[in-house]
Amino acid sequence: MRWSKYFIPTLREDPSEAEIISHKFLLRAGMIRKVSSGIYNFLPLGFKALKKIENVVRNEMNKAGALEILMPLVQPAELWKETERWDIYGKELLRFKDRKEHEFCLGPTHEEVVTDIVRRDIKSYKELPLILYQIAVKFRDEIRPRFGLMRAREFIMKDAYSFDANWEGLEKSYQLMYETYEKIFRNCGLRFKAVEAHTGAIGGDISHEFMVIAETGEDVLALCENCDYASNVELTPAISGEKYPLESEKPLEKVYTPGVKTAQEVAEFLGLPLSKITKTLIYIIDEKEPIAVCIRGDHEVNELKLEKLFKGKSFRMATEEEVERIVGAKPGFIGPKELKIKIIADKSLVGYPNFVIGANENEYHYVNANLGLSFEPDLIEDVRKACKGDLCPKCGNFLTFIRGIEVGHIFKLGIKYSEPMKALFLDKDGQMKPFIMGCYGIGVSRVLAATIEQNYDENGIIFPWQIAPFQVSIVYLKENFKEIAENLYQNLLKNWDVILDDRPERPGVKFKDIDLIGVPLQIIIGKTYEEKKQIEIKIRKTQERKCLALEKIEDFIKEFSNEI
Amino acid sequence: MRWSKYFIPTLREDPSEAEIISHKFLLRAGMIRKVSSGIYNFLPLGFKALKKIENVVRNEMNKAGALEILMPLVQPAELWKETERWDIYGKELLRFKDRKEHEFCLGPTHEEVVTDIVRRDIKSYKELPLILYQIAVKFRDEIRPRFGLMRAREFIMKDAYSFDANWEGLEKSYQLMYETYEKIFRNCGLRFKAVEAHTGAIGGDISHEFMVIAETGEDVLALCENCDYASNVELTPAISGEKYPLESEKPLEKVYTPGVKTAQEVAEFLGLPLSKITKTLIYIIDEKEPIAVCIRGDHEVNELKLEKLFKGKSFRMATEEEVERIVGAKPGFIGPKELKIKIIADKSLVGYPNFVIGANENEYHYVNANLGLSFEPDLIEDVRKACKGDLCPKCGNFLTFIRGIEVGHIFKLGIKYSEPMKALFLDKDGQMKPFIMGCYGIGVSRVLAATIEQNYDENGIIFPWQIAPFQVSIVYLKENFKEIAENLYQNLLKNWDVILDDRPERPGVKFKDIDLIGVPLQIIIGKTYEEKKQIEIKIRKTQERKCLALEKIEDFIKEFSNEI
Repeated sequence: MRWSKYFIPTLREDPSEAEIISHKFLLRAGMIRKVSSGIYNFLPLGFKALKKIENVVRNEMNKAGALEILMPLVQPAELWKETERWDIYGKELLRFKDRKEHEFCLGPTHEEVVTDIVRRDIKSYKELPLILYQIAVKFRDEIRPRFGLMRAREFIMKDAYSFDANWEGLEKSYQLMYETYEKIFRNCGLRFKAVEAHTGAIGGDISHEFMVIAETGEDVLALCENCDYASNVELTPAISGEKYPLESEKPLEKVYTPGVKTAQEVAEFLGLPLSKITKTLIYIIDEKEPIAVCIRGDHEVNELKLEKLFKGKSFRMATEEEVERIVGAKPGFIGPKELKIKIIADKSLVGYPNFVIGANENEYHYVNANLGLSFEPDLIEDVRKACKGDLCPKCGNFLTFIRGIEVGHIFKLGIKYSEPMKALFLDKDGQMKPFIMGCYGIGVSRVLAATIEQNYDENGIIFPWQIAPFQVSIVYLKENFKEIAENLYQNLLKNWDVILDDRPERPGVKFKDIDLIGVPLQIIIGKTYEEKKQIEIKIRKTQERKCLALEKIEDFIKEFSNEI
Repeated sequence: MRWSKYFIPTLREDPSEAEIISHKFLLRAGMIRKVSSGIYNFLPLGFKALKKIENVVRNEMNKAGALEILMPLVQPAELWKETERWDIYGKELLRFKDRKEHEFCLGPTHEEVVTDIVRRDIKSYKELPLILYQIAVKFRDEIRPRFGLMRAREFIMKDAYSFDANWEGLEKSYQLMYETYEKIFRNCGLRFKAVEAHTGAIGGDISHEFMVIAETGEDVLALCENCDYASNVELTPAISGEKYPLESEKPLEKVYTPGVKTAQEVAEFLGLPLSKITKTLIYIIDEKEPIAVCIRGDHEVNELKLEKLFKGKSFRMATEEEVERIVGAKPGFIGPKELKIKIIADKSLVGYPNFVIGANENEYHYVNANLGLSFEPDLIEDVRKACKGDLCPKCGNFLTFIRGIEVGHIFKLGIKYSEPMKALFLDKDGQMKPFIMGCYGIGVSRVLAATIEQNYDENGIIFPWQIAPFQVSIVYLKENFKEIAENLYQNLLKNWDVILDDRPERPGVKFKDIDLIGVPLQIIIGKTYEEKKQIEIKIRKTQERKCLALEKIEDFIKEFSNEI
């Protein structure tokens, strides 16, 4: 591609709407433009990057024997009512009526539609296993669309669905998709990790998330470097590796703590470590029953663990007013002693001597509280997020914590959809049975954002070679090098995605733009060519510069790409 | 692809929902399945065919220098309000609100969104011309979705938009797209014709439709075989080539015509040719003014011509009740004599002697009516559809009429969108000017349907080689030919799309299915191989069968494909 014939509206300044790295660079590199909240245009460069990712995904899915189809975005309510998701699914499911007042939704996912396909046209176990997939537009009416492509409302997803005759079959399909996902993300040139995950709105028993490792990731992963344990921290049992000191219980003492509210403030005021302070949080279950959760000040509540404890009932944090009405004191001064509601204490408080609790009286705390002595919880449970210092639930080694961005998620669905939708096949034994299903998603447009979150520097994007929209750029610094540049361009085009920067711009502008859009190998025909007939190649990632004879360029690129 | 690993749910019977050939065969060949009215799933074979067409389109668009982008399906009302189309566009524009009560629509077309892209990021004439395109899902809430993919609600379209600095630029872009469309449809292996067309809801002054020629087409095209004139019959001026006989005017006579209503019935009753009878139709303009249109019984009103005559005011046929109230007689007995409302007579009545008109009295007609003598119209105009016997408006030769299916439509938009949206660029002369735009659509999923309407026989689809999802099939009739089949399959796969029918089915079933899905070249390893070591190849289109040595197969396929 010649830059002069292309359309890459780069921006010098950081756009104010951009909250995170990938959003900023996607806008600045002229790859996307906002149409509405969470809705974007993909401009030519963004589209090209998207297609590269799509092709990696398609390639591996096809190799795995999955068959590509295309299902509609606009889906009739009837199908969603069969699984009751029409009522269960939250407001992310955008519902509307057509001109004839029939109910429809924009598909956020396609379990119902694909199950309908299979129940109509697959009759026998002989036709199984079957994996169908599509790469298509999805819509989720997110309450807070943000971070550009990271949490968009309209986005591109690859969703696949497996149908098997039995659970062993599902196990195989799941394993096949797991391995396919590993290949996909490897072939995208990304550092990633598969972790055990929560199944959420899609359902099923077991699921794995594929996480692109990035410091800016929203998710935290707990990994064991000793064994293969890896899970989303949401799911990690918190097993403390900390040995509490043997310390005799001191007498409980009420202390005046004016104006200090957060655990951190209390710790500073009392001159104690944060771990010695506890927080007592009030939740309201099912909009009626209040409940107190008491954990260490340096720990965080894991709401997914609460959800399991409350058996899926709805719950939320109490408002400040509710806390005052229930306890008689303001948030920040709440504690488990003499509290008239149900109390859950986190496991980590067991054996922990002489800690601080709120006094349920404004401006007061107790010091030297002890579980069982100062108060008696109704339940002692693991309700916190695992964190540094915790142990691997499999091997007992210390866990490592890193941040990641979810780009793929695979689920064992079993009969969650096939049973209510009566999607049945005739099995070997002559019985009609529901298909055993799995489903497998990749956020294709999200992979683009995650790629950037993992691969950038202050000058812009550093695209991995495998999915770079342009792998090689050519800049010539004098008009009389134009012909050499042209010939080289034509030559390299045969094997690679090349952009020839033929704009009538200053070299500085070109170099900046090329760095910004993340071209991995940058060829410059300038000073070194004039002086010693050598072409300069800059490696975007390492900033290394090589000087090579013209005829060595192709070999260099081949070698560079082979090493990746 | 091995058939046993693929998913082609063919049907033996014609599905009752299918109204036309393409719909029937798309369903029977297991290419699509209905999800809801006008909304379909593309199963693997249908998707593969769609991708083939997409690739032809993409290839030629890229060669023409157009840049591929992706715009969202969900579009904010604000953009549509800028051009006032939010209010003007009919109910095909599906409007809805998101969870925050903001107004959106599903994009039936993307002029507003693409104009917004360009107005934000193109500043100068130096960046022009620019052609952006996408191949994406569109939604039009048709009042009567029907004919499968022919008039679907959710469908795949290629839409392109050109931006130029001046009208000469637009002329060039338009011409470039015109030629690109010719290449696209040629490369799809289709017989087609470009014709002048009505601009409709997209607007602009000039437009051309690309029509796939098919007897089942909804559109009629008027072509001149002498010059290059070609237009949609909607647009063709009706110039009769008929010479009226010189015949003296006979005295007007009222005749009793009991129970005859249609022009055909009147003609039969009176023993006159249909052309001697006239129809007088009552229209209501703007829901208030009635108007009569009088034309020959063998002609049809062209409502587009009326629309122009009525200067775009809304109009409709009067109901039976309205006709009776306005005229005092039932439809079927209406005529222009002594009619108290405005009368438009079609030009063809000029000089036509002694014809029949309704008497404005139930059960009566007049014979021997003559224009100017029996009645005086308010306006004599061309209001009918051109038909056999009419002359070319360019060269005066007789016109030919054929049927076609619209698969592409290109428009000169000019400043219809750029002006109201204030999409301006800085021109050479230092002035800010609106972009001069064109837009160019191809109904990609419709091309698939049109391909079938043009290429089928009683056994199924006859895919053109260029876009056949599978170009070559291989069937082996004995287990001991399996290895030969396998080797041949592996070999041919390198160059072509091949399906190996390895199902444990009877040969008859396989042959039927392969014909149904339209594989152009069908290889059979059976009797001729056993007897004389020769492979049989059947050409789907001509039903010809060749016998060839195994090592000649590749050459044969190459030759076959080169001849296309």
